[in-house]
Amino acid sequence: MSMKDPDGEAASATLSEIGALADVSISTVSKVLNGRPGVSDETRARIEALLQEQGYSRRQAAQRPTSLVEVLVWEIDSTWAVELIAGVERIAREHGLGMVVSNTQDRKVSDARWLEGVIARRPVGVLLVGAELPESQQRQLQSRQIPVVAIDQGGRTGLAEHSVGSADWSGAFAATRHLLDLGHRRIAIITGPDDMIASVARVSGFRAALDAAGVPLPEEYVRHGEFHRQDGLEQGRALLELAAPPTAVFASNDLQALGVYEAARALDVRIPEQLSVVGYDDLKAAAWVVPALTTIRVPLAEMAEQATRLLVRLRDEPGFAVSHIDLATSLVVRQSTAPAPDAAG
Amino acid sequence: MSMKDPDGEAASATLSEIGALADVSISTVSKVLNGRPGVSDETRARIEALLQEQGYSRRQAAQRPTSLVEVLVWEIDSTWAVELIAGVERIAREHGLGMVVSNTQDRKVSDARWLEGVIARRPVGVLLVGAELPESQQRQLQSRQIPVVAIDQGGRTGLAEHSVGSADWSGAFAATRHLLDLGHRRIAIITGPDDMIASVARVSGFRAALDAAGVPLPEEYVRHGEFHRQDGLEQGRALLELAAPPTAVFASNDLQALGVYEAARALDVRIPEQLSVVGYDDLKAAAWVVPALTTIRVPLAEMAEQATRLLVRLRDEPGFAVSHIDLATSLVVRQSTAPAPDAAG
Repeated sequence: MSMKDPDGEAASATLSEIGALADVSISTVSKVLNGRPGVSDETRARIEALLQEQGYSRRQAAQRPTSLVEVLVWEIDSTWAVELIAGVERIAREHGLGMVVSNTQDRKVSDARWLEGVIARRPVGVLLVGAELPESQQRQLQSRQIPVVAIDQGGRTGLAEHSVGSADWSGAFAATRHLLDLGHRRIAIITGPDDMIASVARVSGFRAALDAAGVPLPEEYVRHGEFHRQDGLEQGRALLELAAPPTAVFASNDLQALGVYEAARALDVRIPEQLSVVGYDDLKAAAWVVPALTTIRVPLAEMAEQATRLLVRLRDEPGFAVSHIDLATSLVVRQSTAPAPDAAG
Repeated sequence: MSMKDPDGEAASATLSEIGALADVSISTVSKVLNGRPGVSDETRARIEALLQEQGYSRRQAAQRPTSLVEVLVWEIDSTWAVELIAGVERIAREHGLGMVVSNTQDRKVSDARWLEGVIARRPVGVLLVGAELPESQQRQLQSRQIPVVAIDQGGRTGLAEHSVGSADWSGAFAATRHLLDLGHRRIAIITGPDDMIASVARVSGFRAALDAAGVPLPEEYVRHGEFHRQDGLEQGRALLELAAPPTAVFASNDLQALGVYEAARALDVRIPEQLSVVGYDDLKAAAWVVPALTTIRVPLAEMAEQATRLLVRLRDEPGFAVSHIDLATSLVVRQSTAPAPDAAG
């Protein structure tokens, strides 16, 4: 495999230096450099470290990135992802950048060939939409000066250098406060994944609002979900079949809330008369389901735009400081919430 | 601007030949070749013709295309487009291809810079999702041997060399037949755009089913739309406010049908007791709205897959014959249709 870059000769020289230092062939170094398989994890890590140590990355970075932005999306066909993708596309186009979109159905594992493709395409940067990258892949991108910005960061804080999120804790707090103000005291939650920071922050905001109001939270009212509509259907049904069912459900996203709608319909429970439901995200569908869904508006388009602008900025100012941006959320009251049926007093 | 291609020198020679023949500078030829602005339409057409005549395209085509598929989408944030994009992504990934997605809000006009980007990226091919290309852009792609496959072709038949669609006429015929079988005689339609072949075929199938049953169609029952939910809301309301309102509405897509739901709700008309509604597409939302929508299933994922496989095939067998594929549609009966309220006799 030969280097096809304008500064090809200088790079090749470094390749053989690295090869000598690592005691491997040039082709092995090249494989690592291009994110190809066929190298043991141990050798790959050693070569990556040498590449970074020997400043190979700086020479690499001198290559002009192509005019592409890479987007890795968790569940591309979810309504949530679509609104983010549309936002990225708008800003990318504004800057004359093409947008390469890849899907992963597993939030934490990207296709093995994905990274290889990204490295070959030398994009301006990578946007993660709900998806996460294993640390080894993060390092590979880092050593090639390809910045990564996470939108609505999936994993532990700090995994991605840069991220754009929204005020999850405050949003959940406001949603719960709204239910409390309507007189609800039996309020359940359907959570998102335990290992997504956005999801953890929502549960925390929910609990904090109940605590502040001195309202107890039976553990059976905390239901685990994965941000899918199916969660709302299954957990909603389980909640409504409890001996003491809740009078209100806070779903951690709109899809789950719509699942609760279906559970309620199946059990002949009327929304909002017998059950109040609050969602989270404010997808377009939230406004046109019947009854229209009360929810927390997450500025998805703005988040996508900010994240894309951040990548462009990182291209123009490579040293730009580590940053995390959280945009504001707001309560949108529609028809799915009403005073608690037992709150006459 | 210099040619950066491996066969750069041969190409440059041809460039100056073309320039001499067209009596323009090499830089003008280069602009045309790279799809850049700053050349009059007349000059561009003349140079394009010469490029093709002089066989420049063959030499260009000898360049290996990059591992990218270009997708141009009309209204990227529509649920319809998303299901197609997800299908393309799956097959592209299977073949180790990256998917570049661009959006156009205007079905017939793509961003001026879009073509420039596509030409620079030298993709395996271009997929049009609902979008159309002006003839001049089609020609520019053709002369560079970049094949174009249209999914659910927007414009007149024959505009795109290759296309993958579905049996629109039969689908509409089946939908209308279903309403007739339920005893409906006052059946209205909300159409899609008049200049989209899929839309015209649906209107035609609808009319044919009514004709075959000897059921008259008052002109006020034919309502124009653009495949937007707003059409269903506005035209649905107009239909329900007629002196003799229809007892059934065939919407040309699911989004319009959901707009009719909202119009019915606003006027306190119950679906399906007082009004039957049939949609078209079978988007995921069709199954989970209340009442669940009776609709025509369009195999969106399969269409996207077929179209993507066709592009890959065209890359591997450049001479592969012109083709048009129509996949089958089918009626999915759910809860939004019921016997006509006036069909007791």
